[in-house]
Amino acid sequence: MPSWQRTHTCGELRLDHEGEEATLNGWVNNWRDHGGLVFIDLRDRYGMTQVVFDPNTDEEMHKVARDLRSEYVISVVGKVAPRLEGKRNPKLDTGDIELKATKLELLNRSEVTPFEIGPEAEATSEEIRLRHRYLDLRRPRMQRILDLRHRVCKTTRDYLSERGFLEVETPMLGRSTPEGARDFLVPSRVNPGDFYALPQSPQLYKQILMVAGYDRYFQIARCFRDEDLRANRQPEFTQVDIEMSFIDMDDIIGLIEGLACEIMSGILGRTITPPFPRYTWDDLMRRYGVDRPDLRFGMEIVDITGLAHETDFKVFQQAPSVRGLNAKGAADRYSRKGLDELTAFAGEYGARGLAWLKVDANSFTSPIAKFFSEEQAGKLREAMGAEPGDLLLFVADRYDASHAPLAALRHRLGKELELYNPDDFHFSWCVDFPLLEHDADTGHWVARHHPFTMPLEEDWHLLETEPEKVRAKAYDLIVNGEEAAGGTIRLHKPDLQAKVFSLIGLDEEEAQKRFGFLLDALKYGAPPHGGIAMGLDRWVMLLAKLENIRDCIAFPKTQRATDLMTGAPSEVEPRHLRELGLK
Amino acid sequence: MPSWQRTHTCGELRLDHEGEEATLNGWVNNWRDHGGLVFIDLRDRYGMTQVVFDPNTDEEMHKVARDLRSEYVISVVGKVAPRLEGKRNPKLDTGDIELKATKLELLNRSEVTPFEIGPEAEATSEEIRLRHRYLDLRRPRMQRILDLRHRVCKTTRDYLSERGFLEVETPMLGRSTPEGARDFLVPSRVNPGDFYALPQSPQLYKQILMVAGYDRYFQIARCFRDEDLRANRQPEFTQVDIEMSFIDMDDIIGLIEGLACEIMSGILGRTITPPFPRYTWDDLMRRYGVDRPDLRFGMEIVDITGLAHETDFKVFQQAPSVRGLNAKGAADRYSRKGLDELTAFAGEYGARGLAWLKVDANSFTSPIAKFFSEEQAGKLREAMGAEPGDLLLFVADRYDASHAPLAALRHRLGKELELYNPDDFHFSWCVDFPLLEHDADTGHWVARHHPFTMPLEEDWHLLETEPEKVRAKAYDLIVNGEEAAGGTIRLHKPDLQAKVFSLIGLDEEEAQKRFGFLLDALKYGAPPHGGIAMGLDRWVMLLAKLENIRDCIAFPKTQRATDLMTGAPSEVEPRHLRELGLK
Repeated sequence: MPSWQRTHTCGELRLDHEGEEATLNGWVNNWRDHGGLVFIDLRDRYGMTQVVFDPNTDEEMHKVARDLRSEYVISVVGKVAPRLEGKRNPKLDTGDIELKATKLELLNRSEVTPFEIGPEAEATSEEIRLRHRYLDLRRPRMQRILDLRHRVCKTTRDYLSERGFLEVETPMLGRSTPEGARDFLVPSRVNPGDFYALPQSPQLYKQILMVAGYDRYFQIARCFRDEDLRANRQPEFTQVDIEMSFIDMDDIIGLIEGLACEIMSGILGRTITPPFPRYTWDDLMRRYGVDRPDLRFGMEIVDITGLAHETDFKVFQQAPSVRGLNAKGAADRYSRKGLDELTAFAGEYGARGLAWLKVDANSFTSPIAKFFSEEQAGKLREAMGAEPGDLLLFVADRYDASHAPLAALRHRLGKELELYNPDDFHFSWCVDFPLLEHDADTGHWVARHHPFTMPLEEDWHLLETEPEKVRAKAYDLIVNGEEAAGGTIRLHKPDLQAKVFSLIGLDEEEAQKRFGFLLDALKYGAPPHGGIAMGLDRWVMLLAKLENIRDCIAFPKTQRATDLMTGAPSEVEPRHLRELGLK
Repeated sequence: MPSWQRTHTCGELRLDHEGEEATLNGWVNNWRDHGGLVFIDLRDRYGMTQVVFDPNTDEEMHKVARDLRSEYVISVVGKVAPRLEGKRNPKLDTGDIELKATKLELLNRSEVTPFEIGPEAEATSEEIRLRHRYLDLRRPRMQRILDLRHRVCKTTRDYLSERGFLEVETPMLGRSTPEGARDFLVPSRVNPGDFYALPQSPQLYKQILMVAGYDRYFQIARCFRDEDLRANRQPEFTQVDIEMSFIDMDDIIGLIEGLACEIMSGILGRTITPPFPRYTWDDLMRRYGVDRPDLRFGMEIVDITGLAHETDFKVFQQAPSVRGLNAKGAADRYSRKGLDELTAFAGEYGARGLAWLKVDANSFTSPIAKFFSEEQAGKLREAMGAEPGDLLLFVADRYDASHAPLAALRHRLGKELELYNPDDFHFSWCVDFPLLEHDADTGHWVARHHPFTMPLEEDWHLLETEPEKVRAKAYDLIVNGEEAAGGTIRLHKPDLQAKVFSLIGLDEEEAQKRFGFLLDALKYGAPPHGGIAMGLDRWVMLLAKLENIRDCIAFPKTQRATDLMTGAPSEVEPRHLRELGLK
């Protein structure tokens, strides 16, 4: 056994240990020479402990200690002693004690790090931190996040395993399908000219596993999408993938509610209570303009189309739909310039304009106030629940087109006006999604989720007559304005499946080409089944209150899809490309 | 809730449930019409239950039951009743009861399956089974294997998590390195001409995590190697990857011994006792010709070089080394033809010949018996522990060259002569590997494991003078002749690392090119660290006594690296290739 076998971690020692000998290993967080003594804070994944080196204990040791620098790795033996009354540090778990060193071994030196290992690092550019990710990950904050991520996975696996779910690994080297997002391709050397595709999700495999009788499957699976990266997207991401047989929507919803409770209580120590409220897609779109609203605050959309048509304001008269928000008490918060900004912001979401009215005691301050008769103004106040000091904002457009700008405005106002406690969590479900949507380019129906989604039983009769009204057995879990999970019950009946395929213009040949092996599988006794997928990265972001997805991933890619630490992607040897038959 | 919500699984009902109403869901395993009743065995992942449909209970139901066929999916409600005394089936967990159906719902039909879902399927070609993997995986045997695989992973995660290990996900889209096996490449669309590589192992990342202070890391990680596939290789495989800081070899060995015990007892109900015996590499090569011998039986290699040089047999006289095996009592088992086969077999492993002697009471039956004087024959008997009826086999060659054929012969004889109980497990360690080996092509030293392997402290002084004698802090876990895990303590000291690099002919520039980011990381306070990797597929094969690696993977590839079910790899649309800048 090496001499530096630790007896405790740097986060472990307390007053109870007074007088005990302990061996600690870790990194020198900082050091100071004070009154002839050397003081250091020794850091490891578990915490930080103050260590004192006294020349009277061992002169040689004290000399080595004087040469310690930040991030040197040491092993130290010493006696646990209480700190002097005035020197205690209540911010540190070990702040009541210090270790009076008797032996010191220098395990490794460190060059001067390009940034400090601590909260100060956040001031350093993300590029430099990603380039030296080994140092960035040494920060206690990052270590806490990856620890949390581990515990979310562990809790999930325990929860599902206890309920009879099997984790089954599905292939990373799969088949490319023309559906969905762009695949990452992997050229085959053995079969030149052919390619594997990295999975966008294990969707087809998990349905195959249900056909194969696995009954309750899950996998914490790596998925890939070669899309242009938005701020919070990564080319590879992780999803908790679940599928069950002989169940219906309520079973999946109940299962996930239980899991969410377990994660919240086990990891954050927070109690949430199922069942979570369920909202229909129609309802959410009408009231919030989006199917995943942040429900930690109200500010519902109000439809004033009828009233608007009565006014003299042309834009209102002619718009098929006029809907608005009441930002309570916000009239003073937005100057003319602020309102211009809100208008531009709504414009980014497709609004061709933004009508605003500040509510005064008996009138409105607004460029459009003049278009409202007194009676109309009264009706407007009533409809909007308007009181003096409120700010009313309206979008006049097609009903469909006003969703996005109103939802975005509501989201922005909720944040800017601090309408909710950012530490709150609100869990709810969106259900009864439309099964189909119109593809604006082709004018055809396309499957809103995927083409194996089961329609609601009571809407089956509408499939041929009014397909736009057919609702799907689909369900999304909404947490604080994010889609935290989403799933569907699948089509397992060949006749119904054929009907849906024909609606979305997939003839048998085309369907066979795209989904051949799943269609084959479904012929041999597919059980009723359905599932759900939870974005792990998003869950960690929600739980840790992160804004940047890169903070919840050990080795993330930049928005240019590069890894600044390793330099991936990179050039490869021409010999290697020749072997693959590539140019 | 759908009417088919099950109350029990098909493996659950016992005599205790007599008189209870139960709802079962599953697949019709087989059915027969007998005395006016329809009998079926209903199967799910958990077992099989006999269900009886009586026309007197419900004529309509009985009519539907008569039309049931194999692999139809049904839900059935009924009363649990004891079977008649003579009709009980002790082979079935539910064999004492049957379910007297009162309600039947046909959930889905099935076409006639291309093979029976049961042990009979093994007679069907593997190609057909892989093509219809959803049916192959429906076989109870395959379901048991995937269940076992899940439990191995679960046990491993529980064991490591309880000991403070964090599971950290490392990237799949990594950087290609010129080391090791051939990488699978992924062309980058955002950075045309550049490629990601799928990881051969998370080796560099896990060392980075140690530098980052994570202290105890693990991951059940997918790894990739684009090699020509041998019978028991797959292009993607799974490994339990572990790394620890502030530890030495004994810590890793102790950790893995504990895990092996937990897996053996928790999953197979078998007790094994640590510590496992440790053998040095030299010792194993000398006694078994291989560093992962099957130690469930003896039959050690005996070196008779000295004696052989005294005989009149030229081949023996001139060979630098003559070593052999005593196949106890096997003389009668191998005819002249059988011995020719063994000779050809040894030839496949490089032996230029195989000398054999059958031991009689006072003489040998052998073409080379005449070369031995009576005294030499006596010495040979003594050296080999030979008794009448034994078969002696010798390889005369360089010491190094005789390892492979002798090890292969020993392995084959052990199996053919049934020298061990195939249900036994033998766990041991191989340690003290040579740090370096000669590359026959270049004549240079190369790292036997990887270039970051720590030499044994007591051999550091030999690095410059006798590098061939330097032993590595490397350790392999051997189970039944397989390498079940392997790892090393890593070089964390820059000066020592530089010495090893220069030995293997890596100058600073070249080292920087190959391992740049790890070398950079090691400059900033790397702790002493080491780790190990366990092949999950191999573990499942060992535990389930499988011969074919494809049986332990849900969706395996063939030896041509294709997935017969999905058709991957496949052609992709030219548009997609253009986007990647590929031809």
